[in-house]
Formats: sequence, structure tokens, C-alpha cells
Amino acid sequence: MSSKRSSRRRFIKTSAALASLGAGMSLPVNAQIPRPPGYPPRRPDEHYDYGIRSPFVTSKRIGTNGQRGTDPREGRPRDYGFRTPHHELFGTITPSSLHFIINHGYDAPNIDPVEHRLMIHGLVERPVMLSLDDLYRLPAVSRVHFIECSGNSNVTGRRFYPGWLRTQPEATVQDTHGLASCSEWTGVLLSTLLEHVGVKKEAKWFIAEGAETGFHSKSIPMWKALDDAMVVYAQNGEPLRPEQGFPLRLLTPGFEGVNNVKWLRRIKFTDQPQLSKRETSNYTSERADGTFRWFEFENGTKSVITRPSGQMKLSGPGYHDITGIAYSGRGAITRVEVSTNGGRTWQDAEIQGTIHSKAFTRFRLPWLWKGEETVLMSRSTDDKGDVQPSVAEINQELGLNLSHEWLEAGNPGTSHFNGIQPWRVKRNGEVENALFTV
Amino acid sequence: MSSKRSSRRRFIKTSAALASLGAGMSLPVNAQIPRPPGYPPRRPDEHYDYGIRSPFVTSKRIGTNGQRGTDPREGRPRDYGFRTPHHELFGTITPSSLHFIINHGYDAPNIDPVEHRLMIHGLVERPVMLSLDDLYRLPAVSRVHFIECSGNSNVTGRRFYPGWLRTQPEATVQDTHGLASCSEWTGVLLSTLLEHVGVKKEAKWFIAEGAETGFHSKSIPMWKALDDAMVVYAQNGEPLRPEQGFPLRLLTPGFEGVNNVKWLRRIKFTDQPQLSKRETSNYTSERADGTFRWFEFENGTKSVITRPSGQMKLSGPGYHDITGIAYSGRGAITRVEVSTNGGRTWQDAEIQGTIHSKAFTRFRLPWLWKGEETVLMSRSTDDKGDVQPSVAEINQELGLNLSHEWLEAGNPGTSHFNGIQPWRVKRNGEVENALFTV
Repeated sequence: MSSKRSSRRRFIKTSAALASLGAGMSLPVNAQIPRPPGYPPRRPDEHYDYGIRSPFVTSKRIGTNGQRGTDPREGRPRDYGFRTPHHELFGTITPSSLHFIINHGYDAPNIDPVEHRLMIHGLVERPVMLSLDDLYRLPAVSRVHFIECSGNSNVTGRRFYPGWLRTQPEATVQDTHGLASCSEWTGVLLSTLLEHVGVKKEAKWFIAEGAETGFHSKSIPMWKALDDAMVVYAQNGEPLRPEQGFPLRLLTPGFEGVNNVKWLRRIKFTDQPQLSKRETSNYTSERADGTFRWFEFENGTKSVITRPSGQMKLSGPGYHDITGIAYSGRGAITRVEVSTNGGRTWQDAEIQGTIHSKAFTRFRLPWLWKGEETVLMSRSTDDKGDVQPSVAEINQELGLNLSHEWLEAGNPGTSHFNGIQPWRVKRNGEVENALFTV
Repeated sequence: MSSKRSSRRRFIKTSAALASLGAGMSLPVNAQIPRPPGYPPRRPDEHYDYGIRSPFVTSKRIGTNGQRGTDPREGRPRDYGFRTPHHELFGTITPSSLHFIINHGYDAPNIDPVEHRLMIHGLVERPVMLSLDDLYRLPAVSRVHFIECSGNSNVTGRRFYPGWLRTQPEATVQDTHGLASCSEWTGVLLSTLLEHVGVKKEAKWFIAEGAETGFHSKSIPMWKALDDAMVVYAQNGEPLRPEQGFPLRLLTPGFEGVNNVKWLRRIKFTDQPQLSKRETSNYTSERADGTFRWFEFENGTKSVITRPSGQMKLSGPGYHDITGIAYSGRGAITRVEVSTNGGRTWQDAEIQGTIHSKAFTRFRLPWLWKGEETVLMSRSTDDKGDVQPSVAEINQELGLNLSHEWLEAGNPGTSHFNGIQPWRVKRNGEVENALFTV
């Protein structure tokens, strides 16, 4: 179907649908708008200083696998694996208060920004120690980028299945895709800092280290420092939040989350990677033969429908706007297709708003639901020509046979999973996770 | 100076400056990064649900004219005229918690979104009453737009001068320009709703009404409904904040703030404006002959340097990045020029990030300060060719003679003011408001 015909068809469908929607809502002659509430309660002074949400808005992060509040192993709050509630959000910017959290040490450290320093050293001519004020004086850039944990929409094997909520029918999009968020970040390009420190030609890698308990560190190839890696001090207009690395983090746009080192205190240029545990055991993909793939960096192209999605209930047949987010670690989204019949046919979705490279891109498709049971799916394409794969294509690539049976038998699953996400709409309007059942 | 030469010159200047900056920061051989803090205190569970700022980050809104906390006339908090602290912000998105607030009734009403309705009626074929769920089902758009009160950077006359902080040397950029903020807004285009309600050809205006005590309402010309006016339910990814109209507001991109009716409950299409007090006395510009201009809508092109700005102090001579925001109510910013010598010469600033129409656009210029007293200024141009005027040009257009002497003598000032903002940098690095003194 050509794009022009598709657009025309969508227009007709939308208009008809709007009319049908409206029919149920025509105003009786004696209609009254509900009386607004009277004088509001007095608000505390600090809410004028820095505002808060309406008490009617209660979206929250939820821990990985539905756990929340307390880590059963430690009897204290978990501060990692907290997921963004995509089903309750709009547009492309994730509110900082709802940005997903994964920490590699203990909690977010409570750092005094005046005391904090960033050391840049190793294979450089002029090592430096920078304060936050030093960084504020340097040329800044502001860019919209997502961060995604490689465990996002993880189809885990062995250890966790069948308790792994992400694969179960009752999963929400927060459970399946909540480890990705998108912000406007401001900071200094690493390439700008390199102009100054004079990196030596033997440097092939850099190692970024955080200031949390445990000093999480990660080896990153040199080309990323020369490309778009940033030292970031602000998110969505204000200083970073503590859980996002206040006062300073590394941003490696499009690279798996583990590379975006928070509470950044040190960048060391080296001729080889450090081969730490998070480069050789955690954050690696297991092959069917039991070996692991090291040093995967870029998140593939991916999309997910956020409304309707798991555990929602459609109010009834009629017009519904399907909406979701698409992104790629390799560049800009160029196309999103949506199927409203379990993958038999696909329509081009409308891409809404500005497309930024390596950023959430919002898509939508008008849909006239006639009340049948069906499955909704989305499929993204990026400007490198990569198309979001089906589970069958991922199986073929990795030599796996991902399915409920395969995982129940104790076979490996995979992280770094960017397969198509299906949502089943039942006749009563209830929506459930349809992974492996389409 | 051609743009290419200008860009090359900036590059050289930046590099030299970076080198000089670094010279003071070279690492001694025995350098140690400061020890990070130990185990952090346990955070309350609710901060995992919905995050908060670092205790070291204390930016806040401040009331108009430096007043804060308490309205002296009523002995209670003022909920209007609270200003965005631009000097402490980054990028182009204003955090929702710091979006400026002006209310026309009492406080923000505490509206239950399930009970709230929007009535669209008047000169339409099919009046409707819409719930929030109805709106969620309709085609949505997400767009980045600023909102600016026509009183922003107001050069007020008669009643308030000389107590009017905006014109005084000690004003910060929050005092001078804090009544403008920028967000990613999500909602339904009014033109989409019009497809359904079938507006009659006699309709020349629409009147939008809010649900707060006092029912603020405003007449808006029909062409805006057909162009880009939106009924908005989300801001920066989440539902609107109460002070921004939760659960629903009108957005009239580029129009003066008073048109962006909050807590929107009613849109009535009419053949003429209502001529309310906020259309004929408040929110009108006084001419020198004592008459007023009614129905100004679009904010003109405007820019302001946010760093360095009033009440900041430069740490010393050397390299400093000058940064600020530019915007226009008529379209997209195409150029920002900066003068570092009180307007004698101008250089093209670099425009940072994506340019959205009718949105904050971030600009920057590298500046090597040699320690002299000087004045920094910025001047924006939009895609309609409009150039931000000087005070002299505004005087000529309005038939005024804005100056300290003119205002002290009780002559009229003007709202809807988009003149160039000068900041004086003194030899000791202190920065002050230089309005009328350049």
C-alpha cells in the first residue's frame, strides 16, 4: 500500500470513527457541565517553590518482576530494576521522577556537587581534574536520547523462568519494557574534552568509573568518545536526579545502559578493555552452546505499543487510537508499522513530532475495533535499514528456540532482546501479553 | 562576517580558551580524586516510586517583583506570578515543577479527572461533552511549545515604578524573564475536534473557559482553532500539573499566556468576542495618548542570555560559555546574535539542538573575557524575518520614551515587551541588569 493511499485511508477511517464516537456523546439540550470544586485547600508554600503532581495522578516506578519496595534478600528497598510506567505516559520525554533505575552498587550516593571532581587521565598528554563549575564554563550541548538497559524486555532463561513476569500473560508494558526512558540531556561532548587533554594515539578504549559504593566501571571503545559520548550534568532542564547520577554521568547514546556510568568520577584512556565482571559474565548474551558474546554495545531498533497494552481494558468497540514508542541505538527511526490482526497485514503508523536520532519516537495509528479477539503488534525500522525482528528471526540469529516450552525445559533465554511485542485484545476488551502465543 | 568565517573563528577561540582553562587544572603527579561519600542514607520507599531532587539542588520559583511565599494583601501564599529560574536551568525543557504560574482566579482547583468534562458548543452542528477518556481515544499530537505571559519582562509604568524590580540593577533573569516556560505538550488538536462537531460558517471566534473560581475566559479568533490550538492533557510526559491546568488546558502556541486557558471546561464558538475585562483593560498595551491596544495575540521574537546573567559572579577572566534562550510566537528562530561589547559588534551564536517552531531554542557563544567592564546582549530573528527590537525601536513604535526618567515621571510603560536585554559585567565579575543604561 502506498504511503499516500495509506494516509488517505487513515483519514477516512479517523473521520468515520470520530463521528461514531461523537454519536454517543451528543449533548442533550439541557446539558450542564459538572460544577467545578469550590475554593481549593491552601497549598503548602513549598509547592509554589517547586510543584508537585495532582493527588489524582499516581503513576509510579515498579520493581523488576513486579517486586516493589523491599528486596527480599536484604529486607530493604531495592534501588535497581525500577521501571518506567509507559502505559501512563505521553509524548517522548520521560519525567525524571519516573526514569528507570538500575544501580550497580548500593543506593545512589548523596554527593555534594561542590566537592565532586572528574579526573581524566591515562593515555593523554595533559590529565585534568574538573569541577562542576569548570564543566559549566565549557561548550555545552543539549540532546534528546533514550537510555535502555540490555535487560529490557529480557526473555530470561534457566534461573528465573517460569517466575519471570515479562513472559507471562499478565505483564504490563511497564513489566515488559520499563527499563528504557528518554530525556533531554545537557553536558559537554567527550570529544570537546579530548581536544584539551590531548589523547595519545595508542588509546583504543576508555574506562569510565562511578563514585558509588562498588565503583561500577565499564570499558568503552575509543570511537564512541570521538563520536557522541557526553559528560552530562542536566536532565530535562534541571540538574541530574540522584538516581540518574547527580552531579555527573556518562552518556553513550544508543549503547546499552550499563555503559552510561553514573556519579562519574574518572575517565581513563587505555589500550585495552579492563574485562571486568560486567563485561564478561553479567551483561553478555549466552549462545545455545553455552558461550557468551562479549562487548555488545548498541541497542537494536525496537518499538512497543503503550496503549492499548497489557492489563488495560478497552471501553468497547469503536474508534481507538493506538500509540507507542520506537527507538534505535544505531540512529533515527524512519518507519513504524502496526498490525491489528496478529501480523497478517501491516499499516504504516503516523510518526508524531520530531524524530531525534537514538531517541524515543512516538507513533500512532487510528483503529476501529469491531469487538473481535485480535493481536496488536508494532515493528520499527531505523535509518541504517535495520528492521525490528520477530521472535522467529531472533531464534534463527541466536540459534535458540525461544518459547514457553524451551524456557521451561531450562534452556537459555536472551537479554539484549528487541523482538516484536504482541498484545492480545480479548472480546471483552481486556488486553494481555501475547509473547510466544501468536 | 560570513557564517563560515565566524564558525572557524569561534573554533579557534574555543580551543585556545580550553587550553588556557586546562593550564590551571593540570594534575599534580600525586593527584587524588576526592573520596566519595560512604554508604548513603536509606531513602524513603516513596522516592523509588516517584523520584525527588538531590538535597543540594534548591532552584525554586520566586514571586513577581521578588515577593515570595505570602501575598501581603491577603496574608496567604500568592499563586500567580511565580517565575521560572532560568539562570539555574539547562537545555530547552522547563521542568514542570518550575513552570511559571499565573492564575486568574484563586488557587489551582483540585479537580477529579474522572468527573471533569469539556463542553464544546455554540455555533456548531453537534455540541459534545467530552470526558478525559474520550479525549485519550482521539488522535493525539505531542509538540514542544513555550508559554509566555504578556507581562514577562514587563517595563511597567505609573503604578509600580520605581519599586518594579525588573527595571532595577539587582534583577536576575528570573525577575526579568521568569514568566516564560517551555514544555512538550500532548493533546488533541482543536481542528480534529472541529471535524467532529461541525463548526458553522458564522463562527469567527471561540471563547475558552476554565473551571477555577472566577471562571477565567478568553476570546480567541477562529483561525487559531483551525491552525495549531490544542486541548492538552499532558506536559513533559505525564498528566498536567495542577498549576498548569490539570486535567485539561487550552494551548494556543505563540499566543500570550492569558489565552492558554487552564482547567478548561468549555469552548463556545461565537460570531464575536466577549470583550471581558481581560480583553479590554488588563492585558492590553497602553499607548502614549492613554488609549489601549486590544487583541494582541502573538508574542514577538525574543531572546535573553541566561548565563552569565544578573546577580551571577564570573570566577575570573578567561573562557566562558555564554548561553541563553530564544523564541518567537510567530514561528521558528532562525538566528541569534550576541554582542559582548554593549552592541558595538554582533556575532552569530551557535544554535544548539533541535529548533521547534514557537519553542525555546538554546544558543551559545564561546567568550574569552579579558576582565574589562562590558555589556552582554542577545538579539533573535525568526522565520518571518522579525528581528528582536532595541528599546529605542520599541519607543519609536509605541510613541514612548522608556527610560528611568520617563517612568519616574509617571509615564506609561508597556507589557508585551520583547526588547533586547543587556547584562553588565563589572571588572570584579559581578553581573547586573543594564536595562536603560547602555
